[in-house]
Formats: sequence, C-alpha cells, structure tokens
Amino acid sequence: VTADPGPTTLRFSRGVPPPECIPSHSLAVHTVAVLDAARDAAFQYPPIGRYLGDPALRERLGAFHRVDPDAIFVGNGSLQVLDLLVSLLLLRSGEREVWVEAPTYDRALQVFQRHGARVVGVPVEPDGLDVDVLRGRLRFGTPAFVYTIPDFQNPTGVTMAESKREALVELAAAYGFTIVADIPYRRLRYHGTAPSPIADLVDPVGAARVITLGSLSTVLSPGLRIGYAMSDPETAHALASLAESTYLAPVPLCQAVAARCLAGDVVLSSIGRIRHLLRPRHDAAVAAVRSRLGGALLTVPDGGYYLGLRLRVQADETTLLAAARADGIALARGSAFFPPSEPTPTDTHFLRLPFHALDSGDFAYGIDRLARVCAQFAGSAR
Amino acid sequence: VTADPGPTTLRFSRGVPPPECIPSHSLAVHTVAVLDAARDAAFQYPPIGRYLGDPALRERLGAFHRVDPDAIFVGNGSLQVLDLLVSLLLLRSGEREVWVEAPTYDRALQVFQRHGARVVGVPVEPDGLDVDVLRGRLRFGTPAFVYTIPDFQNPTGVTMAESKREALVELAAAYGFTIVADIPYRRLRYHGTAPSPIADLVDPVGAARVITLGSLSTVLSPGLRIGYAMSDPETAHALASLAESTYLAPVPLCQAVAARCLAGDVVLSSIGRIRHLLRPRHDAAVAAVRSRLGGALLTVPDGGYYLGLRLRVQADETTLLAAARADGIALARGSAFFPPSEPTPTDTHFLRLPFHALDSGDFAYGIDRLARVCAQFAGSAR
Repeated sequence: VTADPGPTTLRFSRGVPPPECIPSHSLAVHTVAVLDAARDAAFQYPPIGRYLGDPALRERLGAFHRVDPDAIFVGNGSLQVLDLLVSLLLLRSGEREVWVEAPTYDRALQVFQRHGARVVGVPVEPDGLDVDVLRGRLRFGTPAFVYTIPDFQNPTGVTMAESKREALVELAAAYGFTIVADIPYRRLRYHGTAPSPIADLVDPVGAARVITLGSLSTVLSPGLRIGYAMSDPETAHALASLAESTYLAPVPLCQAVAARCLAGDVVLSSIGRIRHLLRPRHDAAVAAVRSRLGGALLTVPDGGYYLGLRLRVQADETTLLAAARADGIALARGSAFFPPSEPTPTDTHFLRLPFHALDSGDFAYGIDRLARVCAQFAGSAR
Repeated sequence: VTADPGPTTLRFSRGVPPPECIPSHSLAVHTVAVLDAARDAAFQYPPIGRYLGDPALRERLGAFHRVDPDAIFVGNGSLQVLDLLVSLLLLRSGEREVWVEAPTYDRALQVFQRHGARVVGVPVEPDGLDVDVLRGRLRFGTPAFVYTIPDFQNPTGVTMAESKREALVELAAAYGFTIVADIPYRRLRYHGTAPSPIADLVDPVGAARVITLGSLSTVLSPGLRIGYAMSDPETAHALASLAESTYLAPVPLCQAVAARCLAGDVVLSSIGRIRHLLRPRHDAAVAAVRSRLGGALLTVPDGGYYLGLRLRVQADETTLLAAARADGIALARGSAFFPPSEPTPTDTHFLRLPFHALDSGDFAYGIDRLARVCAQFAGSAR
C-alpha cells in the first residue's frame, strides 16, 4: 500500500489522461444511440468462433490507420492484446528472449516476465532505439520479437528517427524476428511532422513482420478498454482463438460505441482538442525542466504525455524518491522501467515526468521543488 | 470454419441465453442513469493498485451471495477470472495437475491446458463427482486444485449431492488441495431445493480452501462481461495484481451498471423471469428425451441450461455427428468436454443438449430427428 501523499503532493507518478481530454459527453450520446439501435446485441454475448471484433469497428479502424480491416484483431485494451501476442510469438518463434527499449513501459515488462520470457534491454538514445547495439547482439542470437514504442515513448518521450525505423525493418527481414510496435501516443503530436509508421516501411515482398498495437485509450476513452493489433489475417485469427479461450471477446456495447465515435468524427475532433490542450503543457514543461534542471532532459518529445530525465545526484534511488516525497513530490520509480537484468546505477537516476495531467503552473512548481531536492545532495542535477 | 447449417437446422450446439432471458430494457435504463450520474468516471481508466473491482458492485455481490465484499475480486467475465486463478493456484501449490469432472466445461479445459496443467478427469455420476474415485487417486498425489461445476453442471446438468459436497470439503482439508467451484447456473433452479454452496460447508477453523466463481452472464447480461471470484482477501488481492498486469480492470461502465441492477432488484426479477420461462422448456425437454431416447438421459437436472445424454450407437462420434447434421441437427462434439487424456469410447457417445434457447416444440422435433439418426445405426439408443 502506498501511503497517501496528501492533498498538497504533486503527482508526477500517474499516466492517466486528464478528464478534459476524454469526450465524455459525445461518448454518452453515442452510448444512448447504440442502446436505441441495438440494445439486445449490446447485452448479449459477443459473437464467437473466428471473431476478430465488431466488423463496423474494424472497418473504421482500418480506415483510420489505412490498413486491411481483416488484419485487425480487437481486444480488451492493448495491454491484453500484448499479453495474447506474447503467448503467440514465443510459441511461434521458439525463442525465449524478448528485446525491449531500456527504459520501456513497465507493465509491458511485467507481461513479458509473466510469460517466462528473458527480457533484454537495448538502450534508448534521443532519436530512439540504439540500432547499432541491436545489430551487434543479433550476431549472437535472435529474439522472439523486439518490442518498441516508436512515437513519444513511454517513459522517455523519445521518437524513433526515420533512418532507425528503416534499419530496424531491414534487420527484422535479415534475421527473421518480429517487430511489435506499440503506438498509443502517435496521434498526440504537438510540433513537427511524424516519421513513417514502422509497418509502412516493410517491403511488400520482404520477410519483415511488423505487428502494430493501437489503443483508443489515448484518443477517445480508456474506460471502453479497446485495444487492437494490426498485422495480417493469420495473426489476427490466431489472437482471436487465444482470446476466445481466455475471455471470449470485448464488451459489445463498448465496441459499438467506439465504432460510432470513429464514424461520427468524435475521435478526430477529440485528437484536435487533446493537441490543443496539451501543446501548451508540453511547451511549459520543457521550459521548466530546462530552466531548473539544465541538461537532465533526455529529449524534447514534441508529443505524447511524458518527459524523460536523467538526474545525477549523490544518492540512491530510494533516498531520492523519499526526499522528493518528503518535499511533496510523488515520483514513479524510474528503475521499474528497466528490465530487471539491467544494473541499477547508483548515482544517475531515470525519471518519467508526465506533463499531460498537470496544469503548467503546478508542473513548474513541482520542478522547482525537485531541483531543490536534488540540490540537497552533494552532486548537482545535470 | 463450420459450414453454415442452413436455416432449417436445429442448433443443439450453443450455450448462449435466449434474448428473452436478458433484461435489456432495464439494463439500458440503468446504463443511462450511470451516464447521467457519473459520466466522467465511466469513460476514464478504472482505478488501479489493489483494485478488486467497483466497491458498490462488490458490496451488492457480497449481499447477493452473503459473503464478505473484501473477499470478492471482479474480473472480465468468469472465464478470465478462471484464467487468472489457474496461474495463481499452479504457482501457489507447486503442483501441475488439475482434476476436473469428466465431462466438464470445454473452455475451462482449454484454459487449464494453455497453462500447461496436466488435466485429469474424475467421472461424473448422476449425483455429481465420483468422490470415491477422487479419494482413491489422492493416495497417489494431490492436484493444484479440483475444478467443479456443482450445480446443473455444464455439460451434464448434474448437481452434486449434499453428502458428496461434504466429503469433497473433508478431502480438501485432509489433503490440502483447493476446490474451485464454478456456479453460473446455481440460481436457475426450476424444481426442488438447492444443496448448500460448497464454500458454506467449510469448517471456520478448517484448512479447506474453496474459491467460488460467479457470473452475471446467466442472471443479468453476458455482454457486460462481469465475473467474479469469492474467496479470501489475500486471494482476491493476488488476482487483482495479476489482472492489473494483464488487462488492468473490467470496463467501469459495465461494473456501475451491474451494481445498479443488483441494487435495483433487476437481477432478482430477472432470475424470476428466467425461471418462469425456462421451467416449461426444461420439463418438455426431459419428457421428449425420455419418450424418444429412453434411458439415454443422465439425470433430470431440475435447473440450468443442459441435458446430458449418453447414446449407444454402432458408429463413431464423427459419423454420428455427420449423420445428425445431414438430418438437420447441429450437435456439439461430446468428446470435447472430456480431458484429452481420456480414451474416447467407440460406441457410446456423450451429448450435451441445451434446452434453454429452443422452443419446446423445436426441441421435441429435434429429439425425434436425433432418435431417427440413432436408429440408422445398428445399435439402438439407450
């Protein structure tokens, strides 16, 4: 049990979207419309037996991402889809290793470990996965898959450069491993232009296999619990078969509401609104960190939810976090974003700072406090 | 892909409730009420971190089953809860065997096998699990758990007698295995009185551990995907922790709707209506089987969805099912309800006949056809 941080504590520890980024009113309107149009189906079992998800929803997701709807599998949130995918890819490849960006999404690490995978980290640079390290490791073995969050990565905010995406796809084709690209934040870009989706870089006749995970949690509603995998019809059906013997299928009402929201422009206008709301928070957060914590910022993300920091202090992580909490700052433990095999450095600590759910003034105030905490320790923040 | 059986085919193959047994109108009314009262929470992430499920829902489920709400874990349908439970119990016990009734629910078998368990069948008699066989096997080893559907079992319709429940609990205490009691059909009783819930037979200071799985799919709505485990707070929290790293938590809207439906008497009146609708179907189905297929009926269930038959014919199962299909009867493969280690008999076939979703006249007509199919083969149905 985490102790209640108290009302004055600034929470740099949570990744949930702020309420103003969820179009609850439109979601409610479309929920009522589904209840009017197809009430019986909404409360009945979802179809089973080679069921990839609501056909109307897959049609709309296909249009949204410009992919074949029959290559889309819809599941109970993208974490659950990842869980099914790990079973499938470990079995299919016969390999036990999963290679991830270090640091990466902590819950994904938990999923991989629960499946008995050996998780190996590949460092993240300011322009993404260190492809040279990856290439070097491939001389000694091949993973079941490489898991990447290529856009505004959780937890660093880093986006993988176009050239690295191309190199990764070439390596996947040459060595025969699968790329799992998790893209929940891709549409939340506040500045600049997006590199190509990794799946679009695959030579049509090439051997590279890319499986892209999408989520409606960031662009519409986390409460619907709708995530999906975009791959090929064979993989989609294999996932559906696993899902059917695990939880059957996602809630029909949620799928129908999501399909209507995609059809009725709710998602596109929600994305516009989120970008409008979060762009100034991003900019102010970057400015606050630069002014108070100097070179600690890993990169200027230009999108997503997170800033990644690397702080050098003369204290171990537990001491740093406790000192921050004593000063009213709740921080997520940065080491939790690294595979457990990685050695934890004693004087340089990774921190994930979510800027999306904090008012810009609160964020800056929190950074002030954090800088003060760092100054308590002999080494300075860099 | 199963060939389309055509419009005149009678489906004895599906277990989904008929639409008239789902109170869609009331569910819609309560959904709108939730949207009016707590729209933002409905579309936001469910809480995480030691989250057992919506507190209001657990409170109502606790009252419904007369158990401690803090010992209830709510998941995405009872199959998903079973999936989490298998991980937990295999790990906790260190054993690899799971003992099940033979036959049992086919999807549960799939879940156990997917987790790498060795599944061992214990025969089902007309009054439930053969406890003598179970006792004999315990001399040679102990399972991680015994999985039972004690009330109106899927697929046989059998209910475990009170004395067998007591014996099972005694054995669990003596040998230190867990009982997983799956009770989706318990409240759908059309005649007679119910034996005690297995969990109620545990001596308060005894060592027996019973985990009961409940579902709202049979008494309210399968589309909500709400199932739950009733055990002890420690097990509930262990399940919650597994869920959090698999799919986070069930859809908040569905949980809130279920809580309101339990509070507002929708569930109790739904149970009354289902019993009123299905009692005559049960009675007519029993009469039809008795008159046309004689002693093939395993038991008169007095509740639930299913009749279990054991047919003796001079044909293997595939031949029998193909002949039935040619005559317009779609049957589920009876051997799929047995653990794969069980030898498939060559001339005696188990059949599950769901009576709940068929009009009584259609059911009787199907039994006529089935009797005709059996008569095609040299041996007679018995």
